Amino acid sequence: MIRSEVDAMIIVLKKSVTDEEKKNLIERIESLGLSVHLSEGKERTIIGAIGDESILQEKPITSMPGVETVMPILKPYKLVSREFQKEDTIIDVNGVKIGGNKIQMIAGPCSVESQESLTETAIEVAKTGTLLMRGGAFKPRTSPYSFQGLGETGLKYLREAKEKTGMMIVTELMDPRDLDLICEYADIIQIGARNMSNFRLLKDVGGVDKPVLLKRGLSATIKELLMSAEYIASEGNRKIILCERGIRTFETATRNTLDLSAIPVLKELCHLPVVIDPSHAVGRWDLVASSSKAAVAAGADGLMIEVHNDPQNALCDGSQSLRPSKYAELYTQLQTIAQAVGRSL
Amino acid sequence: MIRSEVDAMIIVLKKSVTDEEKKNLIERIESLGLSVHLSEGKERTIIGAIGDESILQEKPITSMPGVETVMPILKPYKLVSREFQKEDTIIDVNGVKIGGNKIQMIAGPCSVESQESLTETAIEVAKTGTLLMRGGAFKPRTSPYSFQGLGETGLKYLREAKEKTGMMIVTELMDPRDLDLICEYADIIQIGARNMSNFRLLKDVGGVDKPVLLKRGLSATIKELLMSAEYIASEGNRKIILCERGIRTFETATRNTLDLSAIPVLKELCHLPVVIDPSHAVGRWDLVASSSKAAVAAGADGLMIEVHNDPQNALCDGSQSLRPSKYAELYTQLQTIAQAVGRSL
Amino acid sequence: MIRSEVDAMIIVLKKSVTDEEKKNLIERIESLGLSVHLSEGKERTIIGAIGDESILQEKPITSMPGVETVMPILKPYKLVSREFQKEDTIIDVNGVKIGGNKIQMIAGPCSVESQESLTETAIEVAKTGTLLMRGGAFKPRTSPYSFQGLGETGLKYLREAKEKTGMMIVTELMDPRDLDLICEYADIIQIGARNMSNFRLLKDVGGVDKPVLLKRGLSATIKELLMSAEYIASEGNRKIILCERGIRTFETATRNTLDLSAIPVLKELCHLPVVIDPSHAVGRWDLVASSSKAAVAAGADGLMIEVHNDPQNALCDGSQSLRPSKYAELYTQLQTIAQAVGRSL
Amino acid sequence: MIRSEVDAMIIVLKKSVTDEEKKNLIERIESLGLSVHLSEGKERTIIGAIGDESILQEKPITSMPGVETVMPILKPYKLVSREFQKEDTIIDVNGVKIGGNKIQMIAGPCSVESQESLTETAIEVAKTGTLLMRGGAFKPRTSPYSFQGLGETGLKYLREAKEKTGMMIVTELMDPRDLDLICEYADIIQIGARNMSNFRLLKDVGGVDKPVLLKRGLSATIKELLMSAEYIASEGNRKIILCERGIRTFETATRNTLDLSAIPVLKELCHLPVVIDPSHAVGRWDLVASSSKAAVAAGADGLMIEVHNDPQNALCDGSQSLRPSKYAELYTQLQTIAQAVGRSL
Repeated sequence: MIRSEVDAMIIVLKKSVTDEEKKNLIERIESLGLSVHLSEGKERTIIGAIGDESILQEKPITSMPGVETVMPILKPYKLVSREFQKEDTIIDVNGVKIGGNKIQMIAGPCSVESQESLTETAIEVAKTGTLLMRGGAFKPRTSPYSFQGLGETGLKYLREAKEKTGMMIVTELMDPRDLDLICEYADIIQIGARNMSNFRLLKDVGGVDKPVLLKRGLSATIKELLMSAEYIASEGNRKIILCERGIRTFETATRNTLDLSAIPVLKELCHLPVVIDPSHAVGRWDLVASSSKAAVAAGADGLMIEVHNDPQNALCDGSQSLRPSKYAELYTQLQTIAQAVGRSL
Repeated sequence: MIRSEVDAMIIVLKKSVTDEEKKNLIERIESLGLSVHLSEGKERTIIGAIGDESILQEKPITSMPGVETVMPILKPYKLVSREFQKEDTIIDVNGVKIGGNKIQMIAGPCSVESQESLTETAIEVAKTGTLLMRGGAFKPRTSPYSFQGLGETGLKYLREAKEKTGMMIVTELMDPRDLDLICEYADIIQIGARNMSNFRLLKDVGGVDKPVLLKRGLSATIKELLMSAEYIASEGNRKIILCERGIRTFETATRNTLDLSAIPVLKELCHLPVVIDPSHAVGRWDLVASSSKAAVAAGADGLMIEVHNDPQNALCDGSQSLRPSKYAELYTQLQTIAQAVGRSL
Repeated sequence: MIRSEVDAMIIVLKKSVTDEEKKNLIERIESLGLSVHLSEGKERTIIGAIGDESILQEKPITSMPGVETVMPILKPYKLVSREFQKEDTIIDVNGVKIGGNKIQMIAGPCSVESQESLTETAIEVAKTGTLLMRGGAFKPRTSPYSFQGLGETGLKYLREAKEKTGMMIVTELMDPRDLDLICEYADIIQIGARNMSNFRLLKDVGGVDKPVLLKRGLSATIKELLMSAEYIASEGNRKIILCERGIRTFETATRNTLDLSAIPVLKELCHLPVVIDPSHAVGRWDLVASSSKAAVAAGADGLMIEVHNDPQNALCDGSQSLRPSKYAELYTQLQTIAQAVGRSL
Repeated sequence: MIRSEVDAMIIVLKKSVTDEEKKNLIERIESLGLSVHLSEGKERTIIGAIGDESILQEKPITSMPGVETVMPILKPYKLVSREFQKEDTIIDVNGVKIGGNKIQMIAGPCSVESQESLTETAIEVAKTGTLLMRGGAFKPRTSPYSFQGLGETGLKYLREAKEKTGMMIVTELMDPRDLDLICEYADIIQIGARNMSNFRLLKDVGGVDKPVLLKRGLSATIKELLMSAEYIASEGNRKIILCERGIRTFETATRNTLDLSAIPVLKELCHLPVVIDPSHAVGRWDLVASSSKAAVAAGADGLMIEVHNDPQNALCDGSQSLRPSKYAELYTQLQTIAQAVGRSL
C-alpha cells in the first residue's frame, strides 16, 4: 500500500497524452499554487491536485490538451450540506415547525382570486388541522393573456384569511421589486420552480429573515437545487425548505414526473426539510391522492396541495385542485400513513 | 345546440388552407370509405371523419397539404383497456393471486449465480411470507465482458429453490429461442425493459399460457407500454402484469426516475395489475426502502425487489440489492403501510 | 358530407360518460357564452365549442366528470405567429440586419473580465467581418462562489470595445433593476435561458424600444418559447430574436443537446429570426465548429459564439470558448456553407 | 511533485468514513488481487486501485460503507475505441465504401409494400447517384394491428430492385430466427433502435461476415451505443456502421430530437463510420431537408432517408417520406454542402 495526499481534483489524462502536454498541465496547476501528485499507470496517467479546490473549479482544465476527464473531489455546496451540519434543520414558522416529526400540510388555492373564495377555502382547510395556507398573489402564467394575480389585494385577502383561521401564509415572490411587500404579508416566501435559477432573487431572499420555500426547477438536477439553496444560505438566511414538484420528462400522461427518490437523496446530502407538491407534479386532481400518500410514505416533511372551493371556476390550475371535502378525506388517510411510518400529521 | 356524428378522427386545417387542399382532403377521406363532417369556424376549418378509425390511423393524413393537426378519438389499444373490461384482472399464478387486495412481493437476486447463494437467499426471503421469487438465468448486460447468466443451469437452481421454499419463479425471457426452456421452469415469464418493444418476442409470449410480467421500457410512455401489452393480448394471452421500473430522465442522482404516478394512470386506462420494481429504478440499496413504501402507498399491486445474501460479491447489480435481513425489516414496514391503505401484504 | 361550425375547442368524452355528465358539460360551456356542437358517434361523443376560445382556455374543462381529452383549436400565441404576419421579421440593429439573407455572427467572451482581454478579443473578432459582439456584465452562475460579472464596469468596457471596432453590443439583462443601465449600453438585450419564463422581466423588455434576443429555456418546448416571445410582443416590442442554445436531455457527453430542427419548426410557426448558440449547447470548444456548420446548413439566421483571447484563464466557460484564430478559421468555413445554402455571411 | 501509480479505479471516501470502513475497503480491494494507493487529504481520503480494472467493475464497490463515489479510469469499450484503432474504419460493401471521403446516401421506403412501388421508387432514387437502398421486410410497429411487413416476399422485391438498379440492400433484422434469411438478401444488416440493447441479437450479427448498421436506441447514451457496437465487435465482426436517428426528449414538435453533436463525439471516441437518419428523427417530410443539410455539414459519413413514390398511400411512415422528386432536389443541394466541407456525395 502506498500513501500520499490528494486534496482537490483528479485529472485523468488521455492515453495519447504527450510529454509536452503533461508538462504544460503540471506547470499550469502548480502556477495556481497547488501541488501535483502524478500517478503513472500502465493505461493512464492521473494527476492529483493538492490544495484549494475552488481555485481549480473556475479554470477550464477540462479543455486543456491531453486531458480526458476531470473529477472534483469536494461537493460544490457547503452550508446546506449534511457534512457542514449533521442534524436536521427544523424551521420554526411562528410556532409551526417544519422538518421535525410532524409532517406539515400547506393547502389552499393556486392563486388568490376573491376574498370570498379564499376565505371559504381557508376555513374548510383549517378545519382539518392544517397549519399553513398557500395562495399566489403574483402568478407566473405561461400566457400573457391569462390571469396574472391580484397583487397586493391578494396579499390582503391572505392576511384576512390568516386572521380568520390562524394559518400561516406561504406565497410566491416573483420579482425583487415585490420583496418588501411580500415580506410584510408572508410567513414563508415561496420561490417558484421558474425562479430556482434566478440567482439575484435568491440572493435577495438570502438577505431577509424569513423562511424560504425553494421549489426545484422543471429540469433542475438535485445538485443544482442544492446550489440554489446555497445561494440563499451564503447570504445569511439558513431557513430554507426544499420542494420537489415534478420534473420534465418525455412522459405526457401527467403534467410532470414526480421524483420521490429526491427525498432520501436530499436527506442524505443536506440537512434541510423537504416538502412535496403533488398537485403541480401530476396536474390532475384525481391523481393527487395517490402521489400524496406516496410522498408521506417516502419520507416527506410536508405536502403542498392545491385546494379550491370551486375548482371549475378557478382562474388558475383548477384541473389540479381538490375540493375541500376531498382534501379533508385525503388528510385523514395521510394521517394513517404518517403513523405507519412513525410520524404524525 | 347542433347535433351530428363524428366517430373516428378530427382533422384541424391550417388557417391558410386552400379550397383545393380542402377538396383533396375530403376526397381522400371519402375514398377510404369514411364519411366527412365539415365544420367551418371563423378561425379554423375542422374535418370530422366518421367510420372505422383504424383505416385512417395507417394513413399519413398529418402530412397532407393544409392539415395542421390530427386528433384520433379512439385509443390505439383495446383488449387491455378499461373500456374493454371494467373489472380488475386478477392473475392466478398457481394459487398466488396478483391484482387483488393482497400486495404480492417478488424478491430474489438479480441473477442466479450459484445454487448455494440462491437457495440461501430464497430460504430467507420465503421466511417473510414472500410467495414469488425472482432470479435471472439469462441476463441482458451492457458490457459483453460482464457475467451473462448461467442459462439452463440457473433455471435448475431456481427450480430447486422453488422446491425448497414453495415460492413461484419469475424469470426473464430474452430470446425467442429460449421460450420453451423458460416455459418449462418459469411460473411467470418476465419481459425486460430492453425488450418491451421487441414485438416479435411479445407475440411469442402472447401465444403461450403463462402469466407475463411486462416491464416498461426505459423511455417508453405509458401509452407505449399499453400498446406492448396489447401485442401480447392480441395473440390470446391475457395474463399480463405491468411493471414500472424507472424511466430515463436528466437526473443522475438515481439510476432512473421512478414514475409512481404511472400506477393511478395505468389503473384508469387499463384493467391489468401493476407492479413496481424500486431496485432498478433507484439503483442503490439504501434508497430502496423509501421507494418501496411510496409504491405501496401509491397503490401498487406488487413489488419486485432485489435481495442477495452477499451483495458485495454479487455478479450483477450488487449495489442495489438488499441483504435478507434488511428485506425482512422492510417487509414488516410495508405491511403496516399496506394496512394503512386498506390492503394486505 | 355534413357541414357545421366549430370554432374554439373540441372536447372528447369518455366512453363511460353519463347523460347527467353530458348535460352538465353542455350547460357549463353554454353558461360561458359559447355555443355547443354535439357529435355522437358510435364509440365516442364529441363536443365542439363555438365562440371565443380564450374563455375556455382559462377553465378547467379537462377535469370535469366525463371528459377524456380537450383539444384547443387555436394556437395560444398570436402576435408572433406566422398567421399574424406572413413575412419574415427583419430586425435592424443600428444598420445591422438580423433575419435577412445575411447570416449574422455574434461573437465574444462569455463574461467581460478585463478591458485588455475584451478589447483584444473584440479587435480580433471584428477583423473577420463580425458585426455583433457578445459579453456578459451580469452573469448567472450556478455557484454563489463563482465570478458574478463586473456589472457596470463591464458595460463600460463593452462600450469601449464597440468604439474601437464598431461592433454592436449584445449583453444579458438578469434583473429588472438593471434595465435602464443595460438599455444605456446594449444594442440588443439578451434574456438568458434561465429567465425565459421570468414573465415580469419579459414584460419589462416588452416595454422598451430595443431588440431582444430571447434564449430558449433549458427544458422549454418550442411552444413555450413562442409564448415567452408573445409576452414581449404583447407589451409592444416586436423586435424579438429567438435563440436555440441546447436543451437538457439524458445525454451527458455534451453539456446540452442542440435541437437544430427547432429552426425549421420555428420558421413555420412564427415570423421571427432564429439564432443558434452552439457554444452553450455543446459546452466544449472542439465541438463548436461541427455544430456551427450544421446550424448554418439548417437555416439559422445567426450564430452566437464564445470567443476568448485566453480561454485557459477565462473566468467563465473557458472550456467552450474558441481562440480568435480558431474563430477566424471557422468564420471562413461558415461562409462557404452559407453560400452553399444560398445565403451570405 | 509526488509520483506513484494508479491503474484501475479511483474511490473517493465520504468525509465521515471511519477507520474500520477504510480498513474493510482496503482489505476488499487487496483480496481481489489489486494494490491500493491511499491518498489522505485534508478534506477527503481517496483510494487508487492498481491492477486489472475489469475485476473491480463487476464488484459493487459503490455501495460499500464509507464510499462516496467511484470513478473508473478506463473506458468500458475497447475494440471500437479510437485508442484501439487510430485510423477511421472504411467499410467496403461490395465496392461501395462507407466511412471515406464520399458521403453515402441510403434511400428508399420505410417498408417494402409492393413490387411496383419499390421498383418505381428505387429506379428514381438510383438516378440521383444513390448507391444504397433501404426497405424493411420485417417492421417493428407500435401497434399489433398495423402492417408488419411482407417478410421474405419483401426481401425478394428488394433483390429485384437491386438487380434493376445496382443499389446495395440495407434491411432490418428484428429476430434471430430471420438471420440466415436476411443474410441471404442483405448487403448491410440493419439493427433498429428498438434492438440496440438486444444483446443476443448483437452477438448473432457479430458472428456473421456482413456489415451491420447499428441504430442508436431512443434513449441510449453515446456510451451505450458504443457498448452495443462492442458486443458486435467482440464476436469478430468489425464492419459496424453507427446510426444516430434522434433521441427521445420532452420536445414534441418533432418525433425525436436529432443529436448531431453525436457525430464529432463519436468520431473522437471511436473509429467507426457515422450515418444520420433524419427521417425518423424529425418525423415530418418537410423538416427532412433542413436536418439532412445540417448532418452533412456536421460531418456525417452518410444519410439514411425515407423516399416513397406515393407517400399518401404508404403503409408505414408516409408522413416522413419524401417523394422521389423532392429527394432528387435535396440530393443536389447536399452535394453543394458536401463540397463546402471538403467531401463528395
